Amino acid sequence: MACQSGDFFQVATSHSFDVLISEVGPRDGLQSVGSTMSTVDKCAWIDALAASGLQEIEVGSFVSPKLLPQMADTAAVVRHALCHPQLTVMVLVPNLRGAQAAIDAGVHKITLPISASSAHSMANVRKSPQEMVDEVRNIIALRDEIAPRVHVEAGISTAFGCTMQGVVPDDEVISLAAACAHAGADEVGLSDTTGMANPAQVQRLFKRLIAELGDKAGAAHMHNTRGLGLANCLAAYEVGTRTFDASLGGLGGCPYAPGASGNVVTEDLVFMFEAMGVRTGVDLERLIAARTQLAHGLPGEPLYGMTPLAGLPKGFEPAAYAPAS
Amino acid sequence: MACQSGDFFQVATSHSFDVLISEVGPRDGLQSVGSTMSTVDKCAWIDALAASGLQEIEVGSFVSPKLLPQMADTAAVVRHALCHPQLTVMVLVPNLRGAQAAIDAGVHKITLPISASSAHSMANVRKSPQEMVDEVRNIIALRDEIAPRVHVEAGISTAFGCTMQGVVPDDEVISLAAACAHAGADEVGLSDTTGMANPAQVQRLFKRLIAELGDKAGAAHMHNTRGLGLANCLAAYEVGTRTFDASLGGLGGCPYAPGASGNVVTEDLVFMFEAMGVRTGVDLERLIAARTQLAHGLPGEPLYGMTPLAGLPKGFEPAAYAPAS
Repeated sequence: MACQSGDFFQVATSHSFDVLISEVGPRDGLQSVGSTMSTVDKCAWIDALAASGLQEIEVGSFVSPKLLPQMADTAAVVRHALCHPQLTVMVLVPNLRGAQAAIDAGVHKITLPISASSAHSMANVRKSPQEMVDEVRNIIALRDEIAPRVHVEAGISTAFGCTMQGVVPDDEVISLAAACAHAGADEVGLSDTTGMANPAQVQRLFKRLIAELGDKAGAAHMHNTRGLGLANCLAAYEVGTRTFDASLGGLGGCPYAPGASGNVVTEDLVFMFEAMGVRTGVDLERLIAARTQLAHGLPGEPLYGMTPLAGLPKGFEPAAYAPAS
Repeated sequence: MACQSGDFFQVATSHSFDVLISEVGPRDGLQSVGSTMSTVDKCAWIDALAASGLQEIEVGSFVSPKLLPQMADTAAVVRHALCHPQLTVMVLVPNLRGAQAAIDAGVHKITLPISASSAHSMANVRKSPQEMVDEVRNIIALRDEIAPRVHVEAGISTAFGCTMQGVVPDDEVISLAAACAHAGADEVGLSDTTGMANPAQVQRLFKRLIAELGDKAGAAHMHNTRGLGLANCLAAYEVGTRTFDASLGGLGGCPYAPGASGNVVTEDLVFMFEAMGVRTGVDLERLIAARTQLAHGLPGEPLYGMTPLAGLPKGFEPAAYAPAS
């Protein structure tokens, strides 16, 4: 798809934020809903998201189209997203084959989910966590050979508990994260895949992650399953986390069903940070406006988020932007 | 109404909690909805709430029945609630006359709302904040004379912003809180009446409140208007706040309408603290069960809360109880 032009693309520069909001709706959201958004609507939605100043968008995943037909057009969506010069275009891949496809499509960043729960890992990708670390190593070797500028993130899923095995020990989470970093991942994040995290646990684990991995410590991917999404993001922020995954309208698993995921709502997360004086680089009004395009592309799908309904408070001022450098 | 008996009333002792959850649904919730819950249903709901281990319930308010017909039976509800020996029975009063009625009814604790925003104060009670401080002084004099064991709380409303005047300066909030304490209030809390608070502001103001008032620093009354309710409670907890207002099912203003209040959901708040290892003294399963009685008494009223829908996580253990002393 051709790029659009005009002031639609006038966004904040990449230097004007304190936290990076990584929008995962076009991947995590769209692969969780029953209906498939058309390629045209995906691209228009990504345009609207990018126009709000979001610096990073997970635009799709390279997985079997038999498994996830909603993601079959990811290569085309990537090509379109690359038209936004200030955007980091990211995709999820489950394996080396997906990574090859992602690199061929021209992405800037790859994320690979690696479950800390063996039960979840076997059920999800039919590989043990250790076998997934081997996959990281293979992907890094491929990346180093053919696309050295592509950034590879490992996301430790079920890091805060698993609906199959229950508790996941902290030590296992941190040693798996360290193994991914040693295998060459540029960044390792922690995901509350099952919505079981609490702020004390989030602080404990991210503190250890940062102590162990330094600047390779990555994103907090929190869910709002039990209403704690923003509290958990706040907790992660307080111990030094600076990248947060979120989904416009909370798209990604219905939060009103048992076991559902319920991503953190981007609008509420951006409101929280901006109100605190923490710069996201995102224009809240444009972000909220992007819901219109999402609703157009997925008619009938429920959208969540409190800030869009309540509106911005009287006298609200977003965090001040630093001069672009 | 007669008290019920049996194991229904076997609750945690008053020594077995780290934070006090003050349930405001029967007052703040019921006075915000259009329909009126019957006295019998109010009492049965309060029984179910008390049975979960809640130590403090705001059971009603002594205001003009012309203004709030839903609260006309507060004296009868207070009498019933007093049957629960471990429960602090609390009511809201807007003035000296209400305080007299509350003391006559036999309450343990009175809360008086005092707005930090002059515009809000005049609109709400037709008195300036300073005139309300005088009212605190009069209530304290009455209390000292006829009911010295009754505890008087002042709740500073619009402490984090006002829908009428916008920003409310921190200095004004803190000096009003100090004036209430000097006027004799036993405890002074801060209320995010309008759902405008953010965690940085919450920490800043509660830090100052605690520094200024010491053990007279009281409850955090947060709203979920923009989704930040739990994050703001966490922020207040982190700087030393130990009492939190919340409402079962988030009853109290529809969170899905502009300007609505949207109380913090008790179920999600208790889940957050218990999961963190912070003891609330509340049994989550019994608390969630109390929704049945609420729904019965207010048919058709929407109830909020994510934890009741998602259920407790696999392997979840509430915070350990200290031996009752």
